[in-house]
Amino acid sequence: MDKNEFTLEQYRLHESRVIRDAIHGYITFEYLPIWQLIATAEVQRLRRIKQLGGTYMVFPSAEHSRFTHSLGVYETVRKMCALDEIDKHLNDYEKLTVMCAGLLHDIGHGPFSHTFEGAFHTNHEEMTRRMILEESEVHHVLKSVHEDLPLDVANVIAHKASKPMIVQMVSSQLDADRMDYLLRDSYFAGVTYGEFDRSRILRTLRIKDDRIVFKYSGVQAIEDYILARYHMYYQVYFHPTARSYEHVFQLIAKRLTVLYEQGYHFQTNIQYLLPFISGEKMSVAEYEALDENVIYYYIGEMQNEDDAILSDLCQRFINRHLFKYESINDASEIEEYRKKTIEKGLDPDYYVVDDEAIQVPYKHYGVGKHTGEIEILMEDGTISTLSDTSHIVNAILHSKPKIDRKVFFVRNSNWRKETDE
Amino acid sequence: MDKNEFTLEQYRLHESRVIRDAIHGYITFEYLPIWQLIATAEVQRLRRIKQLGGTYMVFPSAEHSRFTHSLGVYETVRKMCALDEIDKHLNDYEKLTVMCAGLLHDIGHGPFSHTFEGAFHTNHEEMTRRMILEESEVHHVLKSVHEDLPLDVANVIAHKASKPMIVQMVSSQLDADRMDYLLRDSYFAGVTYGEFDRSRILRTLRIKDDRIVFKYSGVQAIEDYILARYHMYYQVYFHPTARSYEHVFQLIAKRLTVLYEQGYHFQTNIQYLLPFISGEKMSVAEYEALDENVIYYYIGEMQNEDDAILSDLCQRFINRHLFKYESINDASEIEEYRKKTIEKGLDPDYYVVDDEAIQVPYKHYGVGKHTGEIEILMEDGTISTLSDTSHIVNAILHSKPKIDRKVFFVRNSNWRKETDE
Amino acid sequence: MDKNEFTLEQYRLHESRVIRDAIHGYITFEYLPIWQLIATAEVQRLRRIKQLGGTYMVFPSAEHSRFTHSLGVYETVRKMCALDEIDKHLNDYEKLTVMCAGLLHDIGHGPFSHTFEGAFHTNHEEMTRRMILEESEVHHVLKSVHEDLPLDVANVIAHKASKPMIVQMVSSQLDADRMDYLLRDSYFAGVTYGEFDRSRILRTLRIKDDRIVFKYSGVQAIEDYILARYHMYYQVYFHPTARSYEHVFQLIAKRLTVLYEQGYHFQTNIQYLLPFISGEKMSVAEYEALDENVIYYYIGEMQNEDDAILSDLCQRFINRHLFKYESINDASEIEEYRKKTIEKGLDPDYYVVDDEAIQVPYKHYGVGKHTGEIEILMEDGTISTLSDTSHIVNAILHSKPKIDRKVFFVRNSNWRKETDE
Amino acid sequence: MDKNEFTLEQYRLHESRVIRDAIHGYITFEYLPIWQLIATAEVQRLRRIKQLGGTYMVFPSAEHSRFTHSLGVYETVRKMCALDEIDKHLNDYEKLTVMCAGLLHDIGHGPFSHTFEGAFHTNHEEMTRRMILEESEVHHVLKSVHEDLPLDVANVIAHKASKPMIVQMVSSQLDADRMDYLLRDSYFAGVTYGEFDRSRILRTLRIKDDRIVFKYSGVQAIEDYILARYHMYYQVYFHPTARSYEHVFQLIAKRLTVLYEQGYHFQTNIQYLLPFISGEKMSVAEYEALDENVIYYYIGEMQNEDDAILSDLCQRFINRHLFKYESINDASEIEEYRKKTIEKGLDPDYYVVDDEAIQVPYKHYGVGKHTGEIEILMEDGTISTLSDTSHIVNAILHSKPKIDRKVFFVRNSNWRKETDE
Repeated sequence: MDKNEFTLEQYRLHESRVIRDAIHGYITFEYLPIWQLIATAEVQRLRRIKQLGGTYMVFPSAEHSRFTHSLGVYETVRKMCALDEIDKHLNDYEKLTVMCAGLLHDIGHGPFSHTFEGAFHTNHEEMTRRMILEESEVHHVLKSVHEDLPLDVANVIAHKASKPMIVQMVSSQLDADRMDYLLRDSYFAGVTYGEFDRSRILRTLRIKDDRIVFKYSGVQAIEDYILARYHMYYQVYFHPTARSYEHVFQLIAKRLTVLYEQGYHFQTNIQYLLPFISGEKMSVAEYEALDENVIYYYIGEMQNEDDAILSDLCQRFINRHLFKYESINDASEIEEYRKKTIEKGLDPDYYVVDDEAIQVPYKHYGVGKHTGEIEILMEDGTISTLSDTSHIVNAILHSKPKIDRKVFFVRNSNWRKETDE
Repeated sequence: MDKNEFTLEQYRLHESRVIRDAIHGYITFEYLPIWQLIATAEVQRLRRIKQLGGTYMVFPSAEHSRFTHSLGVYETVRKMCALDEIDKHLNDYEKLTVMCAGLLHDIGHGPFSHTFEGAFHTNHEEMTRRMILEESEVHHVLKSVHEDLPLDVANVIAHKASKPMIVQMVSSQLDADRMDYLLRDSYFAGVTYGEFDRSRILRTLRIKDDRIVFKYSGVQAIEDYILARYHMYYQVYFHPTARSYEHVFQLIAKRLTVLYEQGYHFQTNIQYLLPFISGEKMSVAEYEALDENVIYYYIGEMQNEDDAILSDLCQRFINRHLFKYESINDASEIEEYRKKTIEKGLDPDYYVVDDEAIQVPYKHYGVGKHTGEIEILMEDGTISTLSDTSHIVNAILHSKPKIDRKVFFVRNSNWRKETDE
Repeated sequence: MDKNEFTLEQYRLHESRVIRDAIHGYITFEYLPIWQLIATAEVQRLRRIKQLGGTYMVFPSAEHSRFTHSLGVYETVRKMCALDEIDKHLNDYEKLTVMCAGLLHDIGHGPFSHTFEGAFHTNHEEMTRRMILEESEVHHVLKSVHEDLPLDVANVIAHKASKPMIVQMVSSQLDADRMDYLLRDSYFAGVTYGEFDRSRILRTLRIKDDRIVFKYSGVQAIEDYILARYHMYYQVYFHPTARSYEHVFQLIAKRLTVLYEQGYHFQTNIQYLLPFISGEKMSVAEYEALDENVIYYYIGEMQNEDDAILSDLCQRFINRHLFKYESINDASEIEEYRKKTIEKGLDPDYYVVDDEAIQVPYKHYGVGKHTGEIEILMEDGTISTLSDTSHIVNAILHSKPKIDRKVFFVRNSNWRKETDE
Repeated sequence: MDKNEFTLEQYRLHESRVIRDAIHGYITFEYLPIWQLIATAEVQRLRRIKQLGGTYMVFPSAEHSRFTHSLGVYETVRKMCALDEIDKHLNDYEKLTVMCAGLLHDIGHGPFSHTFEGAFHTNHEEMTRRMILEESEVHHVLKSVHEDLPLDVANVIAHKASKPMIVQMVSSQLDADRMDYLLRDSYFAGVTYGEFDRSRILRTLRIKDDRIVFKYSGVQAIEDYILARYHMYYQVYFHPTARSYEHVFQLIAKRLTVLYEQGYHFQTNIQYLLPFISGEKMSVAEYEALDENVIYYYIGEMQNEDDAILSDLCQRFINRHLFKYESINDASEIEEYRKKTIEKGLDPDYYVVDDEAIQVPYKHYGVGKHTGEIEILMEDGTISTLSDTSHIVNAILHSKPKIDRKVFFVRNSNWRKETDE
């Protein structure tokens, strides 16, 4: 069917449906395919993956899942589609495509998200595309609407679309994804850093040559948003206690891999982890089988493994007996920590971590890259960039990146003897 | 040691510590034993048990755990202890006792809380007491402070204390527990129903004969609180979709028990569930081993069991293909649903549930019971009850309880053919 | 012109305009006539009249004006018109009529609103109608759109319209006026009592025979709204300190009238007050000339009048040296206060006030009256009333009204010797 | 009496009193002198002066007064005094001094604050000092506590005190004044720009050599605060519509002065303005007599003056028919506007304004000045400055100030013919 003649009206629900959400009030569903996507196993699975990985170990009320975030991204895209500016530049097929892409953009995440990817060399964007294109409930729903829809949705997630604005709505320096997560992560963590004036930003959104730009009168609201990102990174996302928790997870993964290669006999039946450890190509179904409940169950069980390192790391993980940390300046200091760790009778490869977090709050990419700079529509009709328009953003952009190098280590070979202060 | 001479000062942390919380802003820790309790396995375990069981199936952002609620109850008790009125009526030992009781009052909860108790005949208050009195990390922390502290804390949870006010602070019609959960559950569910004016209520709190009473000028704020409870019950806690989810869990438990008694061979290793299914007396450690991650893992695995009923119920549970529901008036209607279910080839004992939710928003108990009515200190110094003072509360009290009888059932023997509308 | 053929499109602003508001975020203007009404002298005058009269003497941050409230009522009506249910039952002319009525419903208010009406026997609804129908900027704007518009708008304010729903949107037990003021007054006073779930209520709004009804599923949200009204009345609107302030104003009015009748020579040129004191028929322009700034200026000046009573009352008013109050049971107690006042050398007619505030939080009116009960659309399609559906509302309705009788008086003939405790 | 022996306990109220406030919840009063200061004519007068001058012409809900702000500054100082760090560095006399200074720091403001100062060459800090030191109700309350108290309080306002921290609490780059007004102005204007994390900032406050410094861990919260200031300036305080309103006021003042010098006969009795127009030294009582109600009354009356310019400007002011504005680059453009204005038959000295707003969001002052840079206590115990610690603040500091040059003018000689779009 010709996509230009595709009409959403045929899919309109008899009565719109709503889901209550702490951030958006009501999330509204007007069309059947979106409502069907919510009910798929792939989307429901996101209820079992936390949005912020180990962050809830330091901001305990940040226990929210990727499921609610995904609903929030969909809702933000839906509201964008209702803006006059967007409405007149997209046809119904494109609107459905971008709403689906918003809802589905995170389905490929594994447990502990980025930490997991680092540990097991997976890639959530690739898995998201596979889940959409290969055999899955999501795939069936999309295909039932239009043969091309799975591919078109997957392409948006891979930063390809008929018009740049479609990609930009879901994935750019100022997109529905970031707009939702800054507000949501702030709200649940209980901090004010992530707040910004979304309604004003959306009011100043304009389309120019099929690209999203913002009126000059929106620059200050966008500055505020850039700073919200910046502060959320330092205060929340990069908090050393969350990083400590994630390091313990990565060390567990590392130990698992080493033991597996050594032919160690696991008492725990870790069948759903094995494909990740072995590094073999896996099916979508195998990938989906792993969620945070399964991981927690495994780690809980592996507290009783014979391997002392694995058992100890798992006990630390479950009971939040995390590694301590100190700021350091260079690699030579790491050696000191390794020496002391050996003196305690511990293997420094598992008990000392050198970690450098570099934060770049607003980064512009080279020509041709998919997420270029935020563009500003000046009063005279020309286009400028945010960093040329805002001296605050420019200052951030050209400032030396803040380097936060830390060593993570243990104080005592027996965590039961460590105080938690 | 004489409890009257006990001083908290000896346990004061060098610098007070804080945890950020979405409801209280900062939760403050001034004394070492409380800080140590936070780090115990029993308290950390509450991170793996949701505060509202299946409610997040209908209010998706209500994903918060009993851990954050427990911190919030502690913080509310701490703030109460700082009120002049409370401060002058409690000694340091009593203050520590009630703060510990606030923090620990929920540690005995199992996964899905009340649903689990219904399914497996456990009792969380009894388990809380056992965890405090028997071998546990919590027990060791308490005992290290004072030999009697475990028993005194456990007694508060069992509604016994040297002064009624101590029990009332943690467990009464207007206590730290309810104050925290109404505000918290509202915030995370994203509704306004649970809000009330906590600061005004605390300002009007007075002590009379070691009992908590409230000045007459606080009656309206208390009415608002009673209504907040009332509306949260109907709008959130008793929402039929959450009940549907919990029924599916209970049916899984029922099927497990029947299969166990029949000697069915489980492919899934459900070792941590067995003590609950068999009904034998279990140790604290056995009880603690079960949390929501374990349950989810088991149910995830049991989707593949040979038993068709068990497998189907588990698939429904994991993927949120819940039972439908209708309001009914009497038992005869149930028979209709059972008949239709049999026609579909399904066992009505597992696919039809008759459920009557009766809500009593403010109930006063007989003389001598531990949670009597809220008492009001009149302007002339006499004591009255809330229901005698407030005609709204009186009306609620004497109104016919609202009965919400529903049948839960399935539309199709194959849930994949059910639409989720 | 035929009103059925009237189209709002002709008045659409090139780009919609917004005003930032603390309650609604953005208030949106899409049509020129509304934007022109905002700029009229009559609407701008409302900036100089406080929404809550003397309430800011006890809730100091409740300093908001009738202007922002009027914008908020307009915005609420505008949002209602955008609901599918309303949209399909009103033509463009009717929509414009009801939006104008929402914006203009309060323009006839004088300074201190109801207090002023009590003191000088004016009627703000009548003045609102006159301002719309007689020579005024508002009248000109309305007439320029359609010859009948002034009369049709004025009729809505007088509870007459082609369809009951039009009146109900602006003036009924659950209308845009109350929805705005409860949220607004709460927010500015800094209390939580007035909060309710407006979005849910609007979602359950339906039209039946041109009347507004609410789906049964909205009953709890409406109960919450009724309780919000109830609590705002007692906690905020009827606060005795605000009543004390208003009594002082009324006593000033009484003294002015007596002095005027006695031919007293006023040093202060109170020309804009004279028409009110003399009770003669006045023009719209004369009425409009009086706002709270003028009243405050006059009372400030009259602190220096020779008449001791007038001068003292004005000093009390300006500097917040208000009357004290005590609860009383019957008229005999008043006599005691009058006697003591005479002993202090003061005239009890100006220094003792007997005041009975009776609060009826939800009152239903007889058949045929303009604001009947809130109607509920039951699940079987029949219509019931809120009080028949909600046992809480029913209880409130049939409860004995709460009577709050107080005497207001002074402690000392010289207010400088009174402590303000 | 020796100030070191002075004790606040003697002034403790039998029961602490509270005032409800939208920003702080409850504002608490524990000591009689503060409570008495609230009741003085000078403090009550601040109810009649808006906190943000003409800003409510563009953010209509920003109608709050200097009175509530003053209460909020007092409350913030009170909370600071309760911090362990402050508590141990100040004696009771110093605490009372700084709480009084917080409450009274703005009493010298005239109507429209800074606009008025510009128009009539007054200085609110000087007037605040005079009101405290000369005959006034405030002076009497302070003196009744301690003979030196008026002078010590006045000195704090003049940036002199026994310890720098006392001045810094009330008047520095990060003081109680700014903390209150950013939060308050945001809340009432309905914007999010002014929000920051006050509780974290206060948690990191330390005293070093009697100066206020902040722990390094607070830097990000302070950055957020600096940005809040920055954005509030551009988005709210410097909004051109507010500036337009203030220009009209200043032009009225200019015209009044010219007419007065020309011996013009005013029909309006502007007695309380005359001392300001004539520029003669005036008493505290004369100064206090002028508040915004009086000014509004005068301007309302002067709409009928014979002088065409004065009458027109007053009509514009009252009915919000403000000047239009355009951005310009240099003075030559002004000439164009003046020419066109002359062609319309208007006097360009009253109908064209050249206005350059320069915003410096964080300015550090030279050595020895009273408000130096915010100082940061590094982890190694040394002191650094905020701008050396924060690259964002440093960037702002060294960036070219943003210049916003605008011309304000009229489109039509008859404002009735101007559209308000």
